[in-house]
Amino acid sequence: MHTDFTFIENGTVTSPSGFTAGAAYAGINKHARFNLDTALLASAVPCHAVGVFTTSGFKAAAVVLCQSRVPSSSIRGIVVNSGCANAGTGEYGEPDAQNMLTAAADRLGIDAFEMLIASTGVIGKRLPLEALKTAIASIKFSSNGGDLMAKAIMTTDTIPKQCAVVCGGYTIGGVAKGSGMIHPDMATMLSFITTDAVVETGFLQHALREAVNKSFNMISVDGDTSPSDSVILLANGLAGGETITAGSEEAACFQQALDALCIYLAKAVARDGEGATKLMEVTVKGAASAEDARQVARVITTSPLVKTAVHGCDPNWGRIVAAAGRSGAAFVLEKLSLAIGGALVLSNGQPVPADNDELVRVLGGSEVKIELDLNLGSFAAIAWGCDLSAEYVSINADYTT
Amino acid sequence: MHTDFTFIENGTVTSPSGFTAGAAYAGINKHARFNLDTALLASAVPCHAVGVFTTSGFKAAAVVLCQSRVPSSSIRGIVVNSGCANAGTGEYGEPDAQNMLTAAADRLGIDAFEMLIASTGVIGKRLPLEALKTAIASIKFSSNGGDLMAKAIMTTDTIPKQCAVVCGGYTIGGVAKGSGMIHPDMATMLSFITTDAVVETGFLQHALREAVNKSFNMISVDGDTSPSDSVILLANGLAGGETITAGSEEAACFQQALDALCIYLAKAVARDGEGATKLMEVTVKGAASAEDARQVARVITTSPLVKTAVHGCDPNWGRIVAAAGRSGAAFVLEKLSLAIGGALVLSNGQPVPADNDELVRVLGGSEVKIELDLNLGSFAAIAWGCDLSAEYVSINADYTT
Repeated sequence: MHTDFTFIENGTVTSPSGFTAGAAYAGINKHARFNLDTALLASAVPCHAVGVFTTSGFKAAAVVLCQSRVPSSSIRGIVVNSGCANAGTGEYGEPDAQNMLTAAADRLGIDAFEMLIASTGVIGKRLPLEALKTAIASIKFSSNGGDLMAKAIMTTDTIPKQCAVVCGGYTIGGVAKGSGMIHPDMATMLSFITTDAVVETGFLQHALREAVNKSFNMISVDGDTSPSDSVILLANGLAGGETITAGSEEAACFQQALDALCIYLAKAVARDGEGATKLMEVTVKGAASAEDARQVARVITTSPLVKTAVHGCDPNWGRIVAAAGRSGAAFVLEKLSLAIGGALVLSNGQPVPADNDELVRVLGGSEVKIELDLNLGSFAAIAWGCDLSAEYVSINADYTT
Repeated sequence: MHTDFTFIENGTVTSPSGFTAGAAYAGINKHARFNLDTALLASAVPCHAVGVFTTSGFKAAAVVLCQSRVPSSSIRGIVVNSGCANAGTGEYGEPDAQNMLTAAADRLGIDAFEMLIASTGVIGKRLPLEALKTAIASIKFSSNGGDLMAKAIMTTDTIPKQCAVVCGGYTIGGVAKGSGMIHPDMATMLSFITTDAVVETGFLQHALREAVNKSFNMISVDGDTSPSDSVILLANGLAGGETITAGSEEAACFQQALDALCIYLAKAVARDGEGATKLMEVTVKGAASAEDARQVARVITTSPLVKTAVHGCDPNWGRIVAAAGRSGAAFVLEKLSLAIGGALVLSNGQPVPADNDELVRVLGGSEVKIELDLNLGSFAAIAWGCDLSAEYVSINADYTT
């Protein structure tokens, strides 16, 4: 059984065979760090395409369109823009998305129904279609264009997020964006993943859902969720070999590699949360159910009081216990143990005399690990979040203006 | 039918007949604005006592003790301290609370089982019992001591919160505290309410639950809930007259007056949220169920992205729609209408060209009103919250240190 996978240097969404990408600037995203806001991803051959999308009742036009189209076995490309979400745009939403799709399909010389689409940015404003069409028509493709795509989809992100893993004879690559409006109720804002593996579509959908539940659905920046959230996975089969189907040894290997890739990207999103200065990793074990474990971990990563304490290197562990207690999960204070950065502060509900200076030092690191043992069962989960800083407030107090 | 009630000037928890209070400083709350951190409320005669407490699995020792004791018909007083929550203190929690109760009962010359207790402040630290006993023994009582009690229970609050209403021949008075760790999952952190009305205990409990659901359970500062949250209502019957029982005209009057008093105190808590510069009032109508209406209103007041936009006077209404959409309530974008400060920005899912300068002006006020019509049913709710400022972060990044 292959259980080995390796992250490759400078890996990105165009690392798997047959994928190319390019990007341009349409002037939609006024804050674009790399002067790019529009990207196209293309596959040399039709792909199996699966996706996981926002669970919000308020869905962007692009999400509605993609959900009507996947799973599919005939997707050739994805077009995406940042700076405008084309959400809450009323009767204009769907036709504007269709026009953007058509322009992208024209650029690739394919049919519009072979394309998927995503938009991220301000809600309630229309896409500037003419500028977008001009930008799309100008895009040049290359096999290392994934880096440009990672840059073009950024909004308040400060760094592009991309990676790739090789596993057996195939590669899986991906890009992601998302810095605010991130909460584990669904996917992150946007992530695009590709593979040249030959994978049966039903298993592909299942594998993506599994990986998303362990990664993008376990991160939080601010508890807010977006109408645009989408994770799309394209598999073009160009690596050849046996088809990977559910239950096989290769399927387990593929799942492990996909999990690792999604966790890498999700952690990168959490670490780059708006205004964040550090990554918070919350591990919960001993929960009475899997859902309880997830819920406790997520409530802690979302708590403004925990996030501000982590920001201020303040070992105020009572806030972590308070968040766990109000999570709705089965909880018995007298059984709870809690460690921060490996230092035990509560053991079976009894406070443990802790070295305050050591706790402050641990909280000052770029990654803060919080571990809870509920001692009620055998279920575990890991969630990731970030600290809450004054910078988060200033970023969001004047985002549209 | 009496439907009239009037707020009285300088009203407080000792406004109803037969209630006195006093406060002292035990040195527990290092940040006490009025040099007070320990208070005693006393009734000249035994009271009917009812309460609503935190729903968190993590409960402070004082909450566990009060819950075992109410409803009761023999309560004579309440002792409360700020600066230390006596929560997460393991095996010391209950005996420390009992010792504090006994000291308070001694001061009043009553039995310990005639007392209730509350503690608010840092989690995980023990009460300094000797200092507390000395402070309690020094407390002097007066019929306008409610003001001192309002001051002694403050933690990060910036102003004391108190009021009283007269209705028919009786009075209802109250104090509240709470500035952070405030979320509509339960009561606020602490509120103590008194009345000299003659009220049947079963109806009293029902009336308090109803009033709390419309007031303290509809406010949010930061989405965090506290292990100490308690609202306690004492009725001593000294106003005389017929006993108020469920279903009577007087019961309806009492409920209205109690609702108004609780809403006044709850809004004061939200307005004084940590770092807050303005009050946000979210009205939801047209919901498919009462729970949906409450949920949508609460999710909006809790959203960091909505709170930062309100802080920055940024008319980024897409964030309000996004919060409503992810709330879990029945939601049809094409039916939604939204107004900010009376200015319509979305009508049946279609953006309405709005006067941006007017929206910015409205958002700059000390009270920002947000109104949604889901157009799906006939249920409504109102929730209150506050903006999220950089000051919130600095208050909470170093609270224990």
